[in-house]
Amino acid sequence: MVLYIIGLGLFDHKDITLRGLEAVKKSERVWLENYTSILHCPTAELEEAYGKKIELATRTDVESESDKILRGADVEDVSFLVVGDPVCATTHTDLMIRAREKGIKTRVIHNASVMGAAGSSGLHLYNFGATVSIPFFTEGWKPTSFMDKLEYNRGGDMHTLCLLDIKVREPDFEAMMKGKEVYLPPRYMTVNQAVEQIIESLPARESEFKILEKTLCIGMARLGHDDQCIKAGTLEELREEEFGGPLHCFIVCAEEVHELELEAVEEFIVEGSSWKTEKK
Amino acid sequence: MVLYIIGLGLFDHKDITLRGLEAVKKSERVWLENYTSILHCPTAELEEAYGKKIELATRTDVESESDKILRGADVEDVSFLVVGDPVCATTHTDLMIRAREKGIKTRVIHNASVMGAAGSSGLHLYNFGATVSIPFFTEGWKPTSFMDKLEYNRGGDMHTLCLLDIKVREPDFEAMMKGKEVYLPPRYMTVNQAVEQIIESLPARESEFKILEKTLCIGMARLGHDDQCIKAGTLEELREEEFGGPLHCFIVCAEEVHELELEAVEEFIVEGSSWKTEKK
Repeated sequence: MVLYIIGLGLFDHKDITLRGLEAVKKSERVWLENYTSILHCPTAELEEAYGKKIELATRTDVESESDKILRGADVEDVSFLVVGDPVCATTHTDLMIRAREKGIKTRVIHNASVMGAAGSSGLHLYNFGATVSIPFFTEGWKPTSFMDKLEYNRGGDMHTLCLLDIKVREPDFEAMMKGKEVYLPPRYMTVNQAVEQIIESLPARESEFKILEKTLCIGMARLGHDDQCIKAGTLEELREEEFGGPLHCFIVCAEEVHELELEAVEEFIVEGSSWKTEKK
Repeated sequence: MVLYIIGLGLFDHKDITLRGLEAVKKSERVWLENYTSILHCPTAELEEAYGKKIELATRTDVESESDKILRGADVEDVSFLVVGDPVCATTHTDLMIRAREKGIKTRVIHNASVMGAAGSSGLHLYNFGATVSIPFFTEGWKPTSFMDKLEYNRGGDMHTLCLLDIKVREPDFEAMMKGKEVYLPPRYMTVNQAVEQIIESLPARESEFKILEKTLCIGMARLGHDDQCIKAGTLEELREEEFGGPLHCFIVCAEEVHELELEAVEEFIVEGSSWKTEKK
Protein backbone atom coordinates (compact mmCIF):
# COMPACT_ATOMS: atom_id res chain seq x y z
CA MET A 1 0.00 0.00 0.00
CA VAL A 2 1.21 3.46 -0.79
CA LEU A 3 1.24 6.96 0.64
CA TYR A 4 0.81 9.13 -2.46
CA ILE A 5 2.15 12.64 -2.04
CA ILE A 6 0.48 14.50 -4.85
CA GLY A 7 1.14 17.95 -6.26
CA LEU A 8 -2.01 19.87 -7.22
CA GLY A 9 -0.28 22.58 -9.23
CA LEU A 10 -1.07 26.26 -8.97
CA PHE A 11 -4.61 27.16 -9.91
CA ASP A 12 -7.65 24.95 -9.27
CA HIS A 13 -9.01 21.39 -9.32
CA LYS A 14 -8.13 21.00 -13.01
CA ASP A 15 -4.39 21.22 -12.38
CA ILE A 16 -4.03 17.73 -10.97
CA THR A 17 -2.40 15.25 -13.38
CA LEU A 18 -4.18 12.14 -14.66
CA ARG A 19 -1.70 10.09 -12.60
CA GLY A 20 -2.51 12.14 -9.50
CA LEU A 21 -6.26 11.80 -9.97
CA GLU A 22 -5.95 8.05 -10.44
CA ALA A 23 -4.10 7.80 -7.11
CA VAL A 24 -6.69 9.95 -5.31
CA LYS A 25 -9.54 7.86 -6.63
CA LYS A 26 -8.09 4.62 -5.29
CA SER A 27 -7.16 6.05 -1.88
CA GLU A 28 -9.11 5.24 1.24
CA ARG A 29 -8.29 8.57 2.82
CA VAL A 30 -7.33 11.91 1.25
CA TRP A 31 -5.59 14.73 3.11
CA LEU A 32 -5.00 18.27 1.91
CA GLU A 33 -2.23 20.49 3.22
CA ASN A 34 -3.18 24.09 2.53
CA TYR A 35 -1.26 26.19 5.00
CA THR A 36 1.94 26.72 3.00
CA SER A 37 0.12 27.71 -0.19
CA ILE A 38 -3.42 28.02 -1.50
CA LEU A 39 -5.44 27.04 -4.53
CA HIS A 40 -8.04 29.25 -6.11
CA CYS A 41 -10.92 26.92 -5.30
CA PRO A 42 -12.60 25.84 -2.06
CA THR A 43 -12.00 22.34 -0.75
CA ALA A 44 -15.60 21.41 -1.52
CA GLU A 45 -14.86 21.98 -5.21
CA LEU A 46 -11.89 19.61 -5.03
CA GLU A 47 -14.08 17.04 -3.26
CA GLU A 48 -16.70 17.23 -5.96
CA ALA A 49 -14.18 17.12 -8.81
CA TYR A 50 -12.25 14.19 -7.34
CA GLY A 51 -15.26 12.35 -5.92
CA LYS A 52 -13.61 12.00 -2.51
CA LYS A 53 -13.99 13.40 0.95
CA ILE A 54 -10.92 15.49 1.83
CA GLU A 55 -9.56 16.07 5.33
CA LEU A 56 -7.61 19.25 6.02
CA ALA A 57 -4.18 18.79 7.55
CA THR A 58 -3.02 21.55 9.86
CA ARG A 59 0.63 22.42 10.36
CA THR A 60 0.54 20.56 13.66
CA ASP A 61 -0.86 17.44 11.96
CA VAL A 62 1.98 17.43 9.45
CA GLU A 63 4.87 18.53 11.61
CA SER A 64 4.18 17.01 15.01
CA GLU A 65 1.39 14.50 14.57
CA SER A 66 2.28 12.85 11.29
CA ASP A 67 1.10 9.50 12.70
CA LYS A 68 -2.42 10.77 12.17
CA ILE A 69 -1.73 11.09 8.45
CA LEU A 70 0.34 7.93 8.12
CA ARG A 71 -2.18 5.83 10.02
CA GLY A 72 -3.44 3.01 7.81
CA ALA A 73 -1.07 3.75 4.92
CA ASP A 74 0.56 0.35 5.50
CA VAL A 75 -2.68 -1.48 4.73
CA GLU A 76 -4.51 0.89 2.36
CA ASP A 77 -3.67 3.68 -0.08
CA VAL A 78 -3.62 7.19 1.37
CA SER A 79 -3.24 10.43 -0.61
CA PHE A 80 -1.69 13.59 0.77
CA LEU A 81 -2.41 16.56 -1.48
CA VAL A 82 -0.07 19.52 -1.67
CA VAL A 83 -0.52 22.80 -3.54
CA GLY A 84 2.30 23.15 -6.11
CA ASP A 85 4.86 20.33 -6.10
CA PRO A 86 5.54 18.18 -3.03
CA VAL A 87 9.34 18.41 -3.24
CA CYS A 88 9.53 22.15 -3.90
CA ALA A 89 8.60 23.05 -0.32
CA THR A 90 10.58 21.61 2.54
CA THR A 91 7.49 21.00 4.66
CA HIS A 92 6.83 17.57 3.27
CA THR A 93 10.29 16.05 3.46
CA ASP A 94 9.73 15.25 7.09
CA LEU A 95 6.49 13.39 6.37
CA MET A 96 8.36 11.28 3.80
CA ILE A 97 11.12 10.47 6.28
CA ARG A 98 8.58 9.46 8.93
CA ALA A 99 6.83 7.22 6.38
CA ARG A 100 10.15 5.61 5.45
CA GLU A 101 10.90 4.94 9.12
CA LYS A 102 7.59 3.10 9.43
CA GLY A 103 8.26 1.06 6.29
CA ILE A 104 5.43 2.78 4.40
CA LYS A 105 6.02 3.03 0.67
CA THR A 106 5.69 6.56 -0.70
CA ARG A 107 5.22 7.78 -4.24
CA VAL A 108 5.56 11.47 -5.14
CA ILE A 109 3.44 12.69 -8.04
CA HIS A 110 4.98 15.89 -9.29
CA ASN A 111 3.32 19.04 -10.56
CA ALA A 112 4.04 22.66 -11.36
CA SER A 113 5.41 24.88 -8.60
CA VAL A 114 5.96 28.60 -8.26
CA MET A 115 9.70 27.96 -8.60
CA GLY A 116 9.15 26.71 -12.14
CA ALA A 117 6.30 29.03 -13.04
CA ALA A 118 8.59 31.98 -12.23
CA GLY A 119 9.91 31.36 -15.74
CA SER A 120 6.66 33.02 -16.93
CA SER A 121 8.45 36.29 -16.22
CA GLY A 122 10.46 35.75 -19.41
CA LEU A 123 13.68 35.35 -17.42
CA HIS A 124 15.68 32.18 -17.92
CA LEU A 125 15.18 29.87 -15.00
CA TYR A 126 18.78 28.63 -15.02
CA ASN A 127 19.92 32.19 -14.28
CA PHE A 128 18.26 32.20 -10.87
CA GLY A 129 20.33 31.88 -7.72
CA ALA A 130 19.11 30.80 -4.31
CA THR A 131 15.46 31.55 -3.58
CA VAL A 132 14.77 33.81 -0.60
CA SER A 133 11.74 34.18 1.65
CA ILE A 134 10.69 37.63 2.78
CA PRO A 135 8.96 37.51 6.18
CA PHE A 136 6.42 40.09 7.37
CA PHE A 137 8.36 42.75 9.29
CA THR A 138 6.97 43.75 12.65
CA GLU A 139 7.74 46.79 14.78
CA GLY A 140 10.56 45.03 16.60
CA TRP A 141 11.57 42.32 14.11
CA LYS A 142 12.95 43.25 10.72
CA PRO A 143 15.29 40.45 9.66
CA THR A 144 17.10 41.45 6.48
CA SER A 145 19.28 38.39 5.97
CA PHE A 146 17.43 37.69 2.71
CA MET A 147 19.25 40.74 1.33
CA ASP A 148 22.64 39.06 1.84
CA LYS A 149 21.61 36.15 -0.37
CA LEU A 150 20.11 38.53 -2.90
CA GLU A 151 23.35 40.48 -3.10
CA TYR A 152 25.44 37.31 -3.42
CA ASN A 153 23.18 36.16 -6.26
CA ARG A 154 23.61 39.52 -7.99
CA GLY A 155 27.36 39.27 -7.60
CA GLY A 156 27.20 36.10 -9.70
CA ASP A 157 24.82 37.58 -12.30
CA MET A 158 21.87 35.66 -10.95
CA HIS A 159 18.27 36.67 -10.49
CA THR A 160 16.56 36.18 -7.13
CA LEU A 161 13.09 34.78 -6.69
CA CYS A 162 11.54 36.12 -3.49
CA LEU A 163 8.74 34.07 -1.94
CA LEU A 164 6.45 36.25 0.14
CA ASP A 165 5.22 35.45 3.60
CA ILE A 166 1.90 33.74 4.26
CA LYS A 167 0.25 33.76 7.68
CA VAL A 168 -2.60 31.35 8.20
CA ARG A 169 -4.10 30.20 11.48
CA GLU A 170 -2.31 32.96 13.37
CA PRO A 171 -3.53 32.80 16.95
CA ASP A 172 -5.48 35.84 18.12
CA PHE A 173 -3.60 36.24 21.39
CA GLU A 174 -6.06 38.72 22.85
CA ALA A 175 -8.95 36.33 22.41
CA MET A 176 -6.76 33.40 23.48
CA MET A 177 -5.99 35.14 26.75
CA LYS A 178 -9.71 35.25 27.39
CA GLY A 179 -9.70 31.49 26.90
CA LYS A 180 -11.17 31.48 23.39
CA GLU A 181 -9.45 29.68 20.51
CA VAL A 182 -9.61 32.34 17.82
CA TYR A 183 -7.47 32.76 14.73
CA LEU A 184 -6.78 35.92 12.77
CA PRO A 185 -7.84 36.11 9.12
CA PRO A 186 -5.11 34.79 6.77
CA ARG A 187 -2.56 37.31 5.49
CA TYR A 188 -0.63 37.05 2.24
CA MET A 189 2.22 39.48 1.57
CA THR A 190 1.65 41.61 -1.52
CA VAL A 191 4.26 42.74 -4.03
CA ASN A 192 3.79 46.25 -2.67
CA GLN A 193 4.58 45.17 0.88
CA ALA A 194 7.62 43.26 -0.35
CA VAL A 195 8.84 46.34 -2.24
CA GLU A 196 8.43 48.49 0.89
CA GLN A 197 10.36 46.01 2.98
CA ILE A 198 13.17 45.72 0.44
CA ILE A 199 13.45 49.51 0.29
CA GLU A 200 13.48 49.57 4.10
CA SER A 201 16.33 47.01 4.07
CA LEU A 202 18.53 48.91 1.63
CA PRO A 203 20.06 51.80 3.55
CA ALA A 204 23.80 51.45 4.14
CA ARG A 205 24.06 48.50 1.77
CA GLU A 206 26.68 48.85 -0.91
CA SER A 207 24.19 47.89 -3.58
CA GLU A 208 21.60 50.41 -2.34
CA PHE A 209 21.66 52.80 -5.27
CA LYS A 210 21.85 50.12 -7.94
CA ILE A 211 19.00 48.07 -6.55
CA LEU A 212 16.86 51.15 -6.01
CA GLU A 213 17.36 52.87 -9.34
CA LYS A 214 19.01 50.57 -11.86
CA THR A 215 17.60 47.13 -11.29
CA LEU A 216 14.78 45.43 -13.14
CA CYS A 217 12.26 43.94 -10.75
CA ILE A 218 9.25 41.80 -11.58
CA GLY A 219 6.13 41.42 -9.50
CA MET A 220 3.94 38.40 -10.18
CA ALA A 221 0.55 37.39 -8.87
CA ARG A 222 -1.53 34.22 -9.26
CA LEU A 223 0.95 32.44 -11.53
CA GLY A 224 -0.74 29.76 -13.59
CA HIS A 225 -4.21 31.25 -13.05
CA ASP A 226 -6.39 32.60 -15.86
CA ASP A 227 -5.88 36.10 -14.49
CA GLN A 228 -2.19 35.93 -13.62
CA CYS A 229 -0.61 39.36 -13.40
CA ILE A 230 3.03 40.18 -14.18
CA LYS A 231 4.50 43.68 -14.09
CA ALA A 232 8.11 44.78 -14.44
CA GLY A 233 9.98 47.99 -13.62
CA THR A 234 12.23 49.44 -10.95
CA LEU A 235 11.41 48.99 -7.26
CA GLU A 236 10.09 52.55 -7.13
CA GLU A 237 7.91 52.01 -10.21
CA LEU A 238 6.28 48.89 -8.78
CA ARG A 239 5.68 50.43 -5.38
CA GLU A 240 2.10 51.51 -6.12
CA GLU A 241 1.16 49.02 -8.84
CA GLU A 242 -1.96 46.95 -8.24
CA PHE A 243 -1.56 43.17 -8.51
CA GLY A 244 -4.91 41.89 -7.19
CA GLY A 245 -5.52 38.85 -4.99
CA PRO A 246 -2.95 36.36 -3.61
CA LEU A 247 -0.50 34.68 -4.00
CA HIS A 248 2.18 37.17 -4.98
CA CYS A 249 5.89 36.65 -5.53
CA PHE A 250 8.73 38.92 -6.61
CA ILE A 251 11.94 38.84 -8.62
CA VAL A 252 14.96 41.08 -8.21
CA CYS A 253 16.97 40.66 -11.41
CA ALA A 254 20.70 40.34 -11.87
CA GLU A 255 22.55 43.54 -12.64
CA GLU A 256 22.78 42.49 -16.28
CA VAL A 257 19.67 41.08 -17.88
CA HIS A 258 20.32 39.09 -21.03
CA GLU A 259 19.00 40.61 -24.24
CA LEU A 260 16.79 37.60 -25.00
CA GLU A 261 15.35 37.79 -21.51
CA LEU A 262 14.62 41.51 -21.92
CA GLU A 263 12.82 40.82 -25.18
CA ALA A 264 10.53 38.39 -23.36
CA VAL A 265 10.06 40.60 -20.28
CA GLU A 266 9.19 43.62 -22.40
CA GLU A 267 5.46 43.01 -22.56
CA PHE A 268 5.32 43.23 -18.76
CA ILE A 269 7.17 46.53 -18.33
CA VAL A 270 4.93 49.19 -16.80
CA GLU A 271 4.03 52.41 -18.64
CA GLY A 272 6.64 55.12 -18.35
CA SER A 273 9.28 52.82 -16.87
CA SER A 274 12.90 53.86 -17.25
CA TRP A 275 13.43 50.31 -18.50
CA LYS A 276 11.11 51.01 -21.40
CA THR A 277 12.70 54.23 -22.57
CA GLU A 278 16.35 53.67 -21.77
CA LYS A 279 16.99 50.07 -22.63
CA LYS A 280 14.99 49.41 -25.78
CA MET B 1 -8.49 31.42 -30.48
CA VAL B 2 -5.56 30.30 -28.42
CA LEU B 3 -2.12 28.76 -28.79
CA TYR B 4 -1.91 26.48 -25.77
CA ILE B 5 1.63 25.73 -24.70
CA ILE B 6 1.23 22.68 -22.51
CA GLY B 7 3.67 20.98 -20.18
CA LEU B 8 3.49 17.18 -20.22
CA GLY B 9 5.51 16.59 -17.07
CA LEU B 10 8.24 14.02 -16.74
CA PHE B 11 7.08 10.45 -17.23
CA ASP B 12 4.34 9.39 -19.64
CA HIS B 13 0.89 10.22 -21.04
CA LYS B 14 -0.65 10.23 -17.56
CA ASP B 15 1.35 13.25 -16.43
CA ILE B 16 -0.68 15.81 -18.35
CA THR B 17 -3.05 17.87 -16.16
CA LEU B 18 -6.82 17.82 -16.58
CA ARG B 19 -6.55 21.43 -17.81
CA GLY B 20 -3.91 20.44 -20.35
CA LEU B 21 -5.92 17.50 -21.63
CA GLU B 22 -9.01 19.69 -22.00
CA ALA B 23 -7.02 22.11 -24.17
CA VAL B 24 -5.57 19.32 -26.31
CA LYS B 25 -9.02 17.85 -26.90
CA LYS B 26 -10.43 21.11 -28.24
CA SER B 27 -7.42 21.90 -30.44
CA GLU B 28 -7.54 21.56 -34.21
CA ARG B 29 -3.84 20.79 -34.39
CA VAL B 30 -1.45 19.35 -31.82
CA TRP B 31 2.33 19.65 -31.99
CA LEU B 32 4.90 17.88 -29.83
CA GLU B 33 8.40 19.21 -29.23
CA ASN B 34 10.59 16.32 -28.15
CA TYR B 35 14.13 17.32 -28.97
CA THR B 36 15.02 19.11 -25.71
CA SER B 37 13.69 16.32 -23.50
CA ILE B 38 11.90 12.98 -23.81
CA LEU B 39 8.97 11.17 -22.28
CA HIS B 40 8.99 7.49 -21.49
CA CYS B 41 6.27 6.66 -24.00
CA PRO B 42 6.11 6.69 -27.78
CA THR B 43 4.12 9.42 -29.54
CA ALA B 44 1.55 6.84 -30.65
CA GLU B 45 0.72 6.22 -26.99
CA LEU B 46 0.14 9.94 -26.44
CA GLU B 47 -2.07 10.03 -29.55
CA GLU B 48 -4.17 7.17 -28.28
CA ALA B 49 -4.45 8.54 -24.76
CA TYR B 50 -5.37 12.05 -25.92
CA GLY B 51 -7.47 10.98 -28.91
CA LYS B 52 -5.60 13.34 -31.23
CA LYS B 53 -3.14 13.12 -34.06
CA ILE B 54 0.18 14.64 -33.00
CA GLU B 55 2.72 16.28 -35.31
CA LEU B 56 6.37 16.26 -34.27
CA ALA B 57 8.09 19.65 -34.25
CA THR B 58 11.79 19.64 -35.07
CA ARG B 59 14.21 22.20 -33.71
CA THR B 60 14.10 23.97 -37.08
CA ASP B 61 10.29 24.13 -36.96
CA VAL B 62 10.37 25.79 -33.57
CA GLU B 63 13.38 28.05 -33.92
CA SER B 64 13.33 29.16 -37.54
CA GLU B 65 9.98 28.20 -38.97
CA SER B 66 7.61 29.00 -36.15
CA ASP B 67 5.04 30.20 -38.70
CA LYS B 68 4.40 26.56 -39.44
CA ILE B 69 3.33 26.03 -35.84
CA LEU B 70 1.50 29.33 -35.43
CA ARG B 71 -0.42 28.92 -38.70
CA GLY B 72 -4.14 28.93 -38.01
CA ALA B 73 -3.81 29.69 -34.31
CA ASP B 74 -5.61 33.00 -34.92
CA VAL B 75 -8.75 31.21 -36.08
CA GLU B 76 -8.64 27.89 -34.24
CA ASP B 77 -7.09 26.43 -31.09
CA VAL B 78 -3.64 24.92 -31.48
CA SER B 79 -1.74 22.97 -28.81
CA PHE B 80 2.02 22.83 -28.55
CA LEU B 81 3.14 20.07 -26.19
CA VAL B 82 6.40 20.29 -24.30
CA VAL B 83 8.04 17.68 -22.07
CA GLY B 84 8.39 19.11 -18.53
CA ASP B 85 7.18 22.71 -18.11
CA PRO B 86 7.04 25.20 -21.01
CA VAL B 87 8.74 28.04 -19.13
CA CYS B 88 11.53 26.00 -17.57
CA ALA B 89 13.41 25.63 -20.85
CA THR B 90 14.30 28.72 -22.84
CA THR B 91 13.45 27.10 -26.15
CA HIS B 92 9.83 28.09 -26.08
CA THR B 93 10.12 31.72 -25.11
CA ASP B 94 10.80 32.61 -28.70
CA LEU B 95 7.65 30.86 -29.93
CA MET B 96 5.63 32.87 -27.43
CA ILE B 97 7.21 36.13 -28.57
CA ARG B 98 6.48 35.32 -32.24
CA ALA B 99 2.86 34.50 -31.32
CA ARG B 100 2.53 37.81 -29.47
CA GLU B 101 3.88 39.69 -32.50
CA LYS B 102 1.18 38.10 -34.63
CA GLY B 103 -1.51 38.97 -32.12
CA ILE B 104 -2.11 35.32 -31.27
CA LYS B 105 -3.29 34.74 -27.72
CA THR B 106 -1.18 32.22 -25.81
CA ARG B 107 -1.91 30.30 -22.63
CA VAL B 108 0.77 28.35 -20.82
CA ILE B 109 -0.37 25.27 -18.91
CA HIS B 110 2.30 24.43 -16.37
CA ASN B 111 3.58 21.09 -15.23
CA ALA B 112 6.45 19.50 -13.33
CA SER B 113 9.98 20.05 -14.59
CA VAL B 114 13.32 18.54 -13.74
CA MET B 115 14.23 21.78 -11.98
CA GLY B 116 11.46 21.19 -9.47
CA ALA B 117 11.75 17.41 -9.34
CA ALA B 118 15.40 17.84 -8.34
CA GLY B 119 13.95 18.37 -4.88
CA SER B 120 13.42 14.58 -4.84
CA SER B 121 17.09 14.39 -3.87
CA GLY B 122 16.11 15.52 -0.38
CA LEU B 123 17.98 18.81 -0.80
CA HIS B 124 16.05 22.01 -0.28
CA LEU B 125 15.25 23.60 -3.60
CA TYR B 126 15.75 27.15 -2.33
CA ASN B 127 19.39 26.29 -1.61
CA PHE B 128 20.19 25.79 -5.28
CA GLY B 129 22.15 28.40 -7.21
CA ALA B 130 22.25 28.85 -10.96
CA THR B 131 21.65 25.68 -12.99
CA VAL B 132 24.46 24.64 -15.32
CA SER B 133 24.47 22.55 -18.49
CA ILE B 134 27.29 20.10 -19.08
CA PRO B 135 27.94 19.61 -22.80
CA PHE B 136 29.47 16.47 -24.31
CA PHE B 137 33.24 17.05 -24.48
CA THR B 138 34.91 16.22 -27.77
CA GLU B 139 38.58 15.70 -28.57
CA GLY B 140 39.12 19.36 -29.34
CA TRP B 141 36.31 21.03 -27.38
CA LYS B 142 36.17 20.80 -23.62
CA PRO B 143 34.42 23.94 -22.36
CA THR B 144 34.60 24.07 -18.56
CA SER B 145 32.83 27.36 -17.94
CA PHE B 146 30.10 25.46 -16.08
CA MET B 147 32.71 24.91 -13.37
CA ASP B 148 32.98 28.66 -12.75
CA LYS B 149 29.27 28.90 -12.00
CA LEU B 150 29.46 25.78 -9.87
CA GLU B 151 32.29 27.25 -7.81
CA TYR B 152 30.46 30.56 -7.41
CA ASN B 153 27.38 28.68 -6.19
CA ARG B 154 29.50 26.79 -3.68
CA GLY B 155 31.03 30.03 -2.47
CA GLY B 156 27.51 31.10 -1.49
CA ASP B 157 26.61 27.75 0.11
CA MET B 158 24.42 26.78 -2.81
CA HIS B 159 23.93 23.45 -4.52
CA THR B 160 24.27 23.17 -8.29
CA LEU B 161 21.90 21.27 -10.52
CA CYS B 162 23.71 20.07 -13.65
CA LEU B 163 21.59 19.33 -16.69
CA LEU B 164 23.28 16.81 -18.93
CA ASP B 165 23.63 17.12 -22.68
CA ILE B 166 21.17 15.56 -25.11
CA LYS B 167 21.97 15.06 -28.79
CA VAL B 168 19.06 14.22 -31.04
CA ARG B 169 18.92 14.47 -34.83
CA GLU B 170 22.70 14.88 -35.03
CA PRO B 171 23.58 14.91 -38.71
CA ASP B 172 25.73 11.99 -39.84
CA PHE B 173 28.21 14.13 -41.80
CA GLU B 174 29.83 11.17 -43.53
CA ALA B 175 26.50 10.05 -44.99
CA MET B 176 25.51 13.66 -45.65
CA MET B 177 28.63 14.15 -47.77
CA LYS B 178 27.43 11.29 -49.90
CA GLY B 179 24.17 13.19 -50.35
CA LYS B 180 22.09 11.13 -47.94
CA GLU B 181 20.13 12.77 -45.11
CA VAL B 182 21.08 10.52 -42.23
CA TYR B 183 20.98 11.21 -38.51
CA LEU B 184 22.97 9.55 -35.75
CA PRO B 185 21.13 7.70 -32.99
CA PRO B 186 20.20 9.99 -30.08
CA ARG B 187 22.72 10.35 -27.24
CA TYR B 188 21.92 11.22 -23.64
CA MET B 189 24.73 12.00 -21.23
CA THR B 190 24.88 9.63 -18.27
CA VAL B 191 25.77 10.50 -14.69
CA ASN B 192 28.99 8.53 -15.22
CA GLN B 193 29.98 10.62 -18.23
CA ALA B 194 29.18 13.81 -16.31
CA VAL B 195 31.34 12.64 -13.39
CA GLU B 196 34.24 11.89 -15.75
CA GLN B 197 33.95 15.32 -17.35
CA ILE B 198 33.78 17.11 -13.99
CA ILE B 199 36.88 15.21 -12.82
CA GLU B 200 38.58 16.15 -16.09
CA SER B 201 37.70 19.82 -15.45
CA LEU B 202 39.08 19.94 -11.92
CA PRO B 203 42.86 20.07 -12.22
CA ALA B 204 44.37 23.40 -11.22
CA ARG B 205 41.09 24.65 -9.76
CA GLU B 206 41.30 25.87 -6.22
CA SER B 207 38.34 23.76 -5.23
CA GLU B 208 39.83 20.62 -6.79
CA PHE B 209 40.51 18.64 -3.65
CA LYS B 210 37.30 19.62 -1.91
CA ILE B 211 35.07 18.77 -4.85
CA LEU B 212 36.87 15.51 -5.48
CA GLU B 213 37.02 14.17 -1.95
CA LYS B 214 34.79 16.13 0.38
CA THR B 215 31.68 17.01 -1.56
CA LEU B 216 28.37 15.23 -1.58
CA CYS B 217 27.15 14.61 -5.12
CA ILE B 218 23.84 13.16 -6.21
CA GLY B 219 23.15 11.37 -9.47
CA MET B 220 19.52 11.12 -10.55
CA ALA B 221 17.86 9.26 -13.41
CA ARG B 222 14.31 9.24 -14.74
CA LEU B 223 12.92 11.63 -12.12
CA GLY B 224 9.17 11.22 -11.72
CA HIS B 225 9.17 7.76 -13.33
CA ASP B 226 8.14 4.61 -11.50
CA ASP B 227 11.75 3.43 -11.61
CA GLN B 228 13.51 6.69 -10.81
CA CYS B 229 17.01 6.15 -9.49
CA ILE B 230 18.83 8.43 -7.04
CA LYS B 231 22.29 7.71 -5.62
CA ALA B 232 24.52 9.92 -3.49
CA GLY B 233 28.22 9.86 -2.64
CA THR B 234 31.46 11.52 -3.62
CA LEU B 235 32.37 12.02 -7.28
CA GLU B 236 34.70 9.04 -7.09
CA GLU B 237 32.05 6.85 -5.49
CA LEU B 238 29.48 7.60 -8.19
CA ARG B 239 31.95 7.11 -11.02
CA GLU B 240 31.00 3.48 -11.68
CA GLU B 241 27.46 3.41 -10.31
CA GLU B 242 24.76 2.19 -12.69
CA PHE B 243 21.77 4.50 -13.22
CA GLY B 244 19.94 2.84 -16.13
CA GLY B 245 18.20 4.56 -19.03
CA PRO B 246 17.86 8.32 -19.73
CA LEU B 247 17.37 11.09 -18.73
CA HIS B 248 20.04 11.64 -16.12
CA CYS B 249 20.93 14.76 -14.17
CA PHE B 250 23.45 15.53 -11.46
CA ILE B 251 23.85 17.64 -8.35
CA VAL B 252 27.08 18.95 -6.85
CA CYS B 253 26.20 20.01 -3.31
CA ALA B 254 27.29 23.05 -1.37
CA GLU B 255 30.29 22.59 0.89
CA GLU B 256 27.98 22.48 3.87
CA VAL B 257 24.86 20.37 3.58
CA HIS B 258 22.16 21.20 6.11
CA GLU B 259 21.45 18.54 8.71
CA LEU B 260 17.80 18.21 7.66
CA GLU B 261 18.86 17.81 4.05
CA LEU B 262 21.35 15.11 5.01
CA GLU B 263 18.65 13.25 6.90
CA ALA B 264 16.54 13.19 3.72
CA VAL B 265 19.45 12.34 1.40
CA GLU B 266 20.59 9.48 3.62
CA GLU B 267 18.49 6.79 1.97
CA PHE B 268 20.26 7.47 -1.32
CA ILE B 269 23.85 7.26 -0.09
CA VAL B 270 25.71 4.38 -1.74
CA GLU B 271 27.13 1.46 0.25
CA GLY B 272 30.51 2.14 1.79
CA SER B 273 30.41 5.87 1.08
CA SER B 274 32.55 8.11 3.24
CA TRP B 275 29.39 10.17 3.68
CA LYS B 276 27.75 7.23 5.37
CA THR B 277 30.50 6.44 7.80
CA GLU B 278 31.93 9.86 8.57
CA LYS B 279 28.96 12.16 8.69
CA LYS B 280 26.24 10.16 10.38
